[in-house]
Amino acid sequence: MKLLRYGPVGQERPGLLDAQGRLRSLADHIQDIDGQTISPESLKRLAALPIEQLPLVDGNPRLGPCVANTGHFICIGLNYSDHAAETGAEVPPEPIIFTKSPHSIIGANDAVEIPRTSVKTDWEVELGVIIGKTAKYVSQDEALEYVAGYCVVNDLSERAFQIERHGQWSKGKSCDTFGPIGPWLVTRDEVPDPQNLDMWLEVDGHRYQNGSTKTMVYGVAYLVSYLSQFMSLHPGDIISTGTPPGVGMGQKPPVYLKPGQQMRLGINGLGEQHQVTYAAK
Amino acid sequence: MKLLRYGPVGQERPGLLDAQGRLRSLADHIQDIDGQTISPESLKRLAALPIEQLPLVDGNPRLGPCVANTGHFICIGLNYSDHAAETGAEVPPEPIIFTKSPHSIIGANDAVEIPRTSVKTDWEVELGVIIGKTAKYVSQDEALEYVAGYCVVNDLSERAFQIERHGQWSKGKSCDTFGPIGPWLVTRDEVPDPQNLDMWLEVDGHRYQNGSTKTMVYGVAYLVSYLSQFMSLHPGDIISTGTPPGVGMGQKPPVYLKPGQQMRLGINGLGEQHQVTYAAK
Repeated sequence: MKLLRYGPVGQERPGLLDAQGRLRSLADHIQDIDGQTISPESLKRLAALPIEQLPLVDGNPRLGPCVANTGHFICIGLNYSDHAAETGAEVPPEPIIFTKSPHSIIGANDAVEIPRTSVKTDWEVELGVIIGKTAKYVSQDEALEYVAGYCVVNDLSERAFQIERHGQWSKGKSCDTFGPIGPWLVTRDEVPDPQNLDMWLEVDGHRYQNGSTKTMVYGVAYLVSYLSQFMSLHPGDIISTGTPPGVGMGQKPPVYLKPGQQMRLGINGLGEQHQVTYAAK
Repeated sequence: MKLLRYGPVGQERPGLLDAQGRLRSLADHIQDIDGQTISPESLKRLAALPIEQLPLVDGNPRLGPCVANTGHFICIGLNYSDHAAETGAEVPPEPIIFTKSPHSIIGANDAVEIPRTSVKTDWEVELGVIIGKTAKYVSQDEALEYVAGYCVVNDLSERAFQIERHGQWSKGKSCDTFGPIGPWLVTRDEVPDPQNLDMWLEVDGHRYQNGSTKTMVYGVAYLVSYLSQFMSLHPGDIISTGTPPGVGMGQKPPVYLKPGQQMRLGINGLGEQHQVTYAAK
């Protein structure tokens, strides 16, 4: 299933995309797409619904974040060997984790804000992993059972805030609107191999990122198991698994976002995002 | 007011402590103590209630986290000059921020888990600042208007996970149970000077930390304003403002927590916490 949330900010309703790419409402069956309704049991119930009989949604509504009420938004740093190289960093001997504020989450096609005083706002297309069942001390073999599904994430980053303003990376990762997720939560059954997905990102039509989850250093199952040794992962939590080469910081000379630009990004089978940038007031 | 949440895990009800130290229920007036009910308007309504007529709560119930549904749990690193010195670090030229998982939050007197493979679990008594109104690009002069109140935080830390396991600090800060908050959210009007509060922490009766928020490098108003330049702070978010000297890592030789130990900690006017440690299964 391709689960989604549609409607105005804060008033999103649950829905899904049918086989013909039409939007249908799940509002008669669940309250929202969130930690509770993406449990294995709930997804099984939803999968049994007669999809072609669900009400069609009129028009072309905004898509909200594809999962609501995310508690912990975890990111993996330098998880593509070729991206590590372009930023001048070594591939880390263990996954590097950092976080984004859950308040940074927006819909896949919502506008992205360039913060006041920002001069180094950058993009990162990433595979997002959405947890469906509480995971604690789980093995790599069983790790994928805790995954509800996948989505596209744009892990926006202000490089000066992240790197030049002292201390930990969160400072440049948590700005408002820096976490577009979606358009859909694609359930795990539709993604047989999360380590073989093409991904790309363009700014104003120029393709900067062109990669594949094949070159991820630490794969999805490893990451879920690894993280669960340090902390419980809860339903609705998101792990953004790192970015392939082609970020702005890696260009020679570096290229950063300005207001009024357009980003397009996508991952094979997970849909596309489209964001316009604007200056913070 | 001293707002609190009482009852079993996940079923907490809202209450407050009256002038005689008795627990009274607010369940007839609000659903919970959370981002919505700690807004300036809501706190004004609660302050107007005839407290001595609120129902007394029988017995001695567990106290839950003093605020529910925290979105972003932000911490400030090395924010006491004498603590920076004991860890061998310089006072940073700007605040260092890192995060704890909101899933690490527990009640003030709940048990604290020593993670599997942990050998360096450490304590940190800290002043917690609870946001009551969305703050974005606010000045230092107006910053405290965005604060609903204060609480005690024990910023538990696994030093090997934090420092020796590569990358960012979250890894050693986000373990389950590593975020006791409370016992109460003490509203701002009862804390006229957040930069003049004595604080202390004992393990098995030995006093390790003895400090005052007087020696904070970056004070509360500065931190709220500073953080709001990078990201919006939302109602229910917590800023834990750093710890004074006396952490386990700073002892000579270092001292770390083992299962079956007792921590007691407190801040003048904000109450005390008491936690027993146990080994993760």
